Amino acid sequence: MKARIYVTLKEGVLDPQGAAIRGALANLGFEGVEGARQGKFIELVLMEDDRDKAEASVKAMCEKLLANTVIENYSFELE
Amino acid sequence: MKARIYVTLKEGVLDPQGAAIRGALANLGFEGVEGARQGKFIELVLMEDDRDKAEASVKAMCEKLLANTVIENYSFELE
Repeated sequence: MKARIYVTLKEGVLDPQGAAIRGALANLGFEGVEGARQGKFIELVLMEDDRDKAEASVKAMCEKLLANTVIENYSFELE
Repeated sequence: MKARIYVTLKEGVLDPQGAAIRGALANLGFEGVEGARQGKFIELVLMEDDRDKAEASVKAMCEKLLANTVIENYSFELE
């Protein structure tokens, strides 16, 4: 089973990478970019076939390692 | 209009971050993780309302800045 995990900064948390992207795009002449935020996109290949078990373990992986839940949100999809 | 951009390493390109994630998950006792790959997830808020124009400019942004197309693939969704 495959898990696609999205880790993004919570609203209100300063995003220097997003600001850097926005500035660089403007320097390259791309106008009309009102906002930019960068996060992590993690793909895991799991041996687990049972969907509920996979969901529980991915949630635990996010809580323990993949996301800093103080400043980050996470969401994931299982395929 | 919002653009959700996914930048991932091409197959065959060494992914040290993915390997680090896999090792750390194993150390935390998460077994059954056959593979892990990490990429970037970028959200842009665009003033552009015309879908075709937005698509063209996001493609150009990816090609020029957001993805290193030698070693990375990119895909995006417009909302």
